Amino acid sequence: MTPNTGDLEMNKESIKQGLYEFCCELFPICRSITGDGVRETLHRIREHLPALEIHEVPTGTQVFDWTVPREWNIRDAYILDPDGRKIVDFQESNLHVVGYSLPVDQAISLDDLQAHLHSLPEQPDAVPYITSYYQERWGFCLNHTLRQSLKPGMYRVFIDSDLKDGHLTYGELILPGELEDEIFLSTYICHPSMANNELSGPAVTTYLARWLMSLKNRKYTYRIVFIPETIGSITYLSRHESILRERVIAGFNVTCIGDGQRYSYLESRYGDTLADRVARHVLSHKHPDYMAYSFLDRGSDERQYCSPGIDLPLATLMCSKYGTYPEYHTSLDNLDFITPVGLYGGYELLKACLQCLEANETLMIRVKCEPQLGRRGLYPTLSTRESNAIVRNMMNLIAYADGRNDLLQIADRINLPMWELFDIVTQLKEKDVIEVVGH
Amino acid sequence: MTPNTGDLEMNKESIKQGLYEFCCELFPICRSITGDGVRETLHRIREHLPALEIHEVPTGTQVFDWTVPREWNIRDAYILDPDGRKIVDFQESNLHVVGYSLPVDQAISLDDLQAHLHSLPEQPDAVPYITSYYQERWGFCLNHTLRQSLKPGMYRVFIDSDLKDGHLTYGELILPGELEDEIFLSTYICHPSMANNELSGPAVTTYLARWLMSLKNRKYTYRIVFIPETIGSITYLSRHESILRERVIAGFNVTCIGDGQRYSYLESRYGDTLADRVARHVLSHKHPDYMAYSFLDRGSDERQYCSPGIDLPLATLMCSKYGTYPEYHTSLDNLDFITPVGLYGGYELLKACLQCLEANETLMIRVKCEPQLGRRGLYPTLSTRESNAIVRNMMNLIAYADGRNDLLQIADRINLPMWELFDIVTQLKEKDVIEVVGH
Amino acid sequence: MTPNTGDLEMNKESIKQGLYEFCCELFPICRSITGDGVRETLHRIREHLPALEIHEVPTGTQVFDWTVPREWNIRDAYILDPDGRKIVDFQESNLHVVGYSLPVDQAISLDDLQAHLHSLPEQPDAVPYITSYYQERWGFCLNHTLRQSLKPGMYRVFIDSDLKDGHLTYGELILPGELEDEIFLSTYICHPSMANNELSGPAVTTYLARWLMSLKNRKYTYRIVFIPETIGSITYLSRHESILRERVIAGFNVTCIGDGQRYSYLESRYGDTLADRVARHVLSHKHPDYMAYSFLDRGSDERQYCSPGIDLPLATLMCSKYGTYPEYHTSLDNLDFITPVGLYGGYELLKACLQCLEANETLMIRVKCEPQLGRRGLYPTLSTRESNAIVRNMMNLIAYADGRNDLLQIADRINLPMWELFDIVTQLKEKDVIEVVGH
Repeated sequence: MTPNTGDLEMNKESIKQGLYEFCCELFPICRSITGDGVRETLHRIREHLPALEIHEVPTGTQVFDWTVPREWNIRDAYILDPDGRKIVDFQESNLHVVGYSLPVDQAISLDDLQAHLHSLPEQPDAVPYITSYYQERWGFCLNHTLRQSLKPGMYRVFIDSDLKDGHLTYGELILPGELEDEIFLSTYICHPSMANNELSGPAVTTYLARWLMSLKNRKYTYRIVFIPETIGSITYLSRHESILRERVIAGFNVTCIGDGQRYSYLESRYGDTLADRVARHVLSHKHPDYMAYSFLDRGSDERQYCSPGIDLPLATLMCSKYGTYPEYHTSLDNLDFITPVGLYGGYELLKACLQCLEANETLMIRVKCEPQLGRRGLYPTLSTRESNAIVRNMMNLIAYADGRNDLLQIADRINLPMWELFDIVTQLKEKDVIEVVGH
Repeated sequence: MTPNTGDLEMNKESIKQGLYEFCCELFPICRSITGDGVRETLHRIREHLPALEIHEVPTGTQVFDWTVPREWNIRDAYILDPDGRKIVDFQESNLHVVGYSLPVDQAISLDDLQAHLHSLPEQPDAVPYITSYYQERWGFCLNHTLRQSLKPGMYRVFIDSDLKDGHLTYGELILPGELEDEIFLSTYICHPSMANNELSGPAVTTYLARWLMSLKNRKYTYRIVFIPETIGSITYLSRHESILRERVIAGFNVTCIGDGQRYSYLESRYGDTLADRVARHVLSHKHPDYMAYSFLDRGSDERQYCSPGIDLPLATLMCSKYGTYPEYHTSLDNLDFITPVGLYGGYELLKACLQCLEANETLMIRVKCEPQLGRRGLYPTLSTRESNAIVRNMMNLIAYADGRNDLLQIADRINLPMWELFDIVTQLKEKDVIEVVGH
Repeated sequence: MTPNTGDLEMNKESIKQGLYEFCCELFPICRSITGDGVRETLHRIREHLPALEIHEVPTGTQVFDWTVPREWNIRDAYILDPDGRKIVDFQESNLHVVGYSLPVDQAISLDDLQAHLHSLPEQPDAVPYITSYYQERWGFCLNHTLRQSLKPGMYRVFIDSDLKDGHLTYGELILPGELEDEIFLSTYICHPSMANNELSGPAVTTYLARWLMSLKNRKYTYRIVFIPETIGSITYLSRHESILRERVIAGFNVTCIGDGQRYSYLESRYGDTLADRVARHVLSHKHPDYMAYSFLDRGSDERQYCSPGIDLPLATLMCSKYGTYPEYHTSLDNLDFITPVGLYGGYELLKACLQCLEANETLMIRVKCEPQLGRRGLYPTLSTRESNAIVRNMMNLIAYADGRNDLLQIADRINLPMWELFDIVTQLKEKDVIEVVGH
C-alpha cells in the first residue's frame, strides 16, 4: 500500500498558516458547554467541512448519570469601581466572567464582592479561567495585581446573561471508508478565549478532516466530533454507545496540540489498545523524547471514552499536557502561546498515526523458507559482505510476516518506523511474496 | 466498608507491654517438638484465647512421609567437672541440653565428652541451640570460652530425660466469619528459651487472635494454629489437607517478628498468591525498605504449606529473617533481643495485612461514564485547577472499579495504600456508585 | 540419570588435536554450494562417521521457492600480467576466483579487467570471499595492495571451470534413540578455504556425532546434516519438512565455533524454544559474558530453519559471530585464526547443551510435604545452622518438582547449572522420592 498522501498538493506552508489563522478567527468567540458561542464555532468549522452535522440536544435530556444543563448565553458584563470606572470588562476578554454566571446588576461593597472574585496570587498578571456549571452563582475573574489595588467602597457589578432551557450543541462528521470499522477523533469546543487549550484541538482536527476528505480511498470510516468537554462526550456516548463500542478500532482525543513543546501521550485505561500502540510507535520514532503519561494523569475526555463499560480504544495526544504548563487555564494561554509551527507539528503527528492505522494489516508470507528475491528483481546478484545489509529490512519484514503480527507489531519488532515499510510492503505484494490475512 | 478497628479501645501501650510480658512469661519453659513444655505453653496461650483447642496426636501416627516421634521430657541435666563443680546446668538455661537427648548418668573423660559437646568458636560467648530429633544421642551445648577452659580429667554427665511413646501436641483456634473461606495463621512453639525465634511468633499471633475476636464482624473465618515446627505443620496438614486446600485464601507463617529491625517477606513457592500480594502491598507502603526473600531462602513452615500438592497461598512475614542475624539459634536470642516496640510493629504489620484482606473485594461501577459526583455531594461545585486533584483518588478508584480488579489491585494500580481507600469505598457504596461483584 | 560421558575414554587432548587437524585436512578443498569439493569434504567426514549418507539432488529440482542450480566445478584459474607473470593463481588459494565463475580465456585491458576484480580497500592484505551463484559472471579476488600495483596493459585471464547440470550434494546422519523425538544439528560445507567460517562447524559437528555414537544409550534420535548453506538447507527442508516439524524438539546451527573468542548465541525467531532455553542456560553458567544476538542479526541457516511455516526450534551457537570479526569472509579467516583450544571449547559447549537436553525431563515429587530425607540417608541427622545449607539444593529441586517444570526450568529457577542436579536427580529417583512425568 502506498501511503495516502492526498495533501501533497496542499502547501505545507499554507496548512501551517491556515491552522494558525483559524485559531485566531475562533479565539474571540465566547464559548461554554452550551450556547451561541459553541454554535458560532461549529459554523466556522463547517465552512471548512461542509458535511459537518450540527446536533442540538435539549436541556433536561438524561445522558447516563448526567442531565443536559440549561443553556447559558452572555452579552455583556463588567465591574464599575467606586469612581464609576469600568475596571473589569467582558468585552475586553470573555475570561473575566465565571462561566455559567447568573445575571446580576447591583451595588456591592468590596468586602462582599471579594467572595465573587477569582485571581491567582502566584500568577498576578494572569486572569484565571473559572466555571461553575452545576452550582448557580456569579463571579468575575481578574488579574491579582488589579485585585490587590482595589480600594474599599461600593462597586457596581453587571452581568447580562441568561441561563434557561435550550440545547447542548455538538458537531459530527462521518467520512465513510471501505470498512465499517471506524477511527474516532474527538476534540472540544467549550472553552472561551484560550489558544492551546482549546483552539489547537479543533483547528488541527479540522485540518485532519480536510486531509482525510482529500484522500482517494480510505480503508476506515472516520467519525470526528467537535463537542463540549465532559458533558458533551457523555452526551455523545449516551447516544452512540453501542455503535462506538462495536466499530471503533482506535481513536484519539485531540487537545493542547499547538505549543510545539515536548510531545505528550496519555494512555488509555490499560494502555494496551491499538490507539496506544500506534501513538507510542509514531512518537518513539518522530519524537523519541516524548512524555508518556499514565491514565492516572488523565483529565480530558479520555475520562469518558475510556471509562469502564465504555472502553473505547482511545489515547490522548498533546504537546504540553493540560495542567502541566503555567499558562494553562489562564489568559496567558493566548495566541502568542501557540505557533504555526507548533500547530503543524501536532497535525503531522496525528496524520502519521492515521496513516499508520490505514496501512496496518496482518501479513503472511506466501512461500516457505526465504523467497528467492533474486529472480523477482529484489536482491543484488553479487553476494558481498554489504549485500546482506541492503535487503535486511525486507527480509526482517518477511520473517515476521507469519500471520501473528500486524505491520505495526512487525515495525516495532524490527525497530523501524512503520512508514519505512510501506514501499517494501507494496513491492512484496506486487511480487506475490506476501498477502494480507487480516486488517 | 469501615476498617475493622475493634482494638481501638485496647490501649496501644497495653498491647505493647502485653506482648513483651507474654514473651517473658513463656521464655523459661523448656519446649521441644513434643512434651510438657509444649503443653504448658499452649495452656498459657489458652488463658488469652479460651476457645483454643489443644490436640494430642499419638506417637507412631503416620503423617505423610513422616511418623509422629516419641515424646521427650526432661527434668534436669548437668555436667560436673573433675572437681565436682556444676559447670553446665540445665536449670540455668534449657539450651544447655541437645534437644531430644537420651538420659545419661556416667563418668566420662574430657576426650570422650568432647564428642557430646557443642559450641560456637566464632561466637565464644553464645550457647548454641542444637537438636537431634530423629537420631538417638545425647549432648550438651555450652559457650566456647567455657569449653576451651575445660581441663583433662573425668567429668560426670547427667541427663534426667525420657523419650517414650506419648503425643505430639498442638493448639488450634477457629474463629468463624461470614464466609467459609479462611485466613490461616501458623506459628510454632517448639523452641526452648529463645525470644525472637520463637516467642515473638506465638505472642504476636495470640494478640492478633485477641484482636480478631474483638471484631464485631469478620468476613473470613480464621484458622490459627500453634504447632511444633516441621513435624507439627506436617501433622496438621496431614489431618486437614483437603479442607485447607479448599478454603484457605491467604495465610501467614508468623515467626521472628519481634526485634523491630528491617522487615522481611518470604514469598510463597511462586510468589503469586493473595498472601504475597497483600504482604508486598502493606510492606511497600508501611516499610518500603523491606527485604524480599525468594522461596529459595525458605526455612520455616512455608516449606510444608507451600510444598507441591499442598500449595497453600501463604507467605512468611518477619523482622530480621531467621538465619540472617548472629543471635539466631543461640542463647543471644534472648529477651534483650526483642522489644515491646518491635513486637508491636510486627503485630501492626500483620493486623494491616488482615485488615486489607477483610476489606478486599471486587468492585464494579454502577453507572457509565463518570458519575455525577456533584449531585451526590462528592464533588466541589467550583471548578478550579485545584479541584481535580481533590477528587482524583475517588475518580481513580472508580476508573478501575470495572470488575477486573479487586481493591488490592486497584490500590496497587493507583499507587495508594489500600487503607486510604476504605472511606472512599464506603462513601461510593452509600451513594450507590459502586457495588461489590466478588470478594 | 547419570550424564552420558561416553567420551571419558577419548583423551581431551586427542579431541582437541583431532578437531584442529580435521580442519587442516579439509582446508585446501575448493568447496562451493555444489560440486566435487562438497563431495570430497563429505567423503572425508564419512571416514569419521561411516553411517553418513550422501545424497545427490539433481539440478533443476524445485525446492520451495528455489531451484537447485547447475553444478559448478573448477580446475584452474589465473591472471597473467602484461609481462606474462602469473599474478593471481587459483592453485595458491581458491579464494582468488569468484564462486560460480564461468569459464574464460581471453586477453583483456586493465580497464576492462577492473570490473571483474574484487578487493577490500580497508583490508589491503586480505583476499575477499565473493560468490555469484544466481547471476552468471566471472571474476577474481585479490588483495588490494596487489590490485593497486597493477600497471595498464593487456592481461590474460583464464578460468577452467564448468557450470552444467549435475547435483547438489549433502550428507545426513541419523542416530536413533529411545524416542522418535529428534535433536537436529546442521552445519554447512560450501565455503572454500576459510577456517572459522566454515570448517569449525563441520569439524565440531563431526566430533559431536562421534561422541553421540559412543553413548551407550541416547534418549533422543539425532539428525545431523552437512549441507551447503541456504540452498542446501532449503533443499533439505523441502524434502523433510513434515518429519522435521513433527519430531524436532531442539536444534542447533553450528558455525563459526573455532576461534575461542567470546561465545555468541543467536536466538530463534521468537527466542522462546527449547533450543533457546538450553543455549541460554548453558552459556549463562559456562560463559556468563556471552553475547546474545537478536534474530534480526541472523545470517546463516537459521534464516531457513526458523522461517514462518517452518518454525523449527533452533538456535545458532558460535564464538565470534559471522560478520562481526574483520577476518570474516576473507583469506584472513585461515588456520591461524582458529585454535585447537577454540574448537574444543565449541565442542564442549554444544556437548553440554546436548547433555542437558538428554537429561531434561519433567519431574514430580511422590510425597506430600517435605520427604523425610533422614530415613532415606539423604539428610544429616544432627541439626545445626549449617545442615540446612547442605541439603538446600536437593530441597530446592524437590520444591519445584511439581510437574510444572522441566529440569531445565528447575535449574534456572534455583540458579544452578543443570549438571549440578544430575546426581541429585539420580539419588532422588533411586529413593523413590521423585518420578518422571514427562520428557
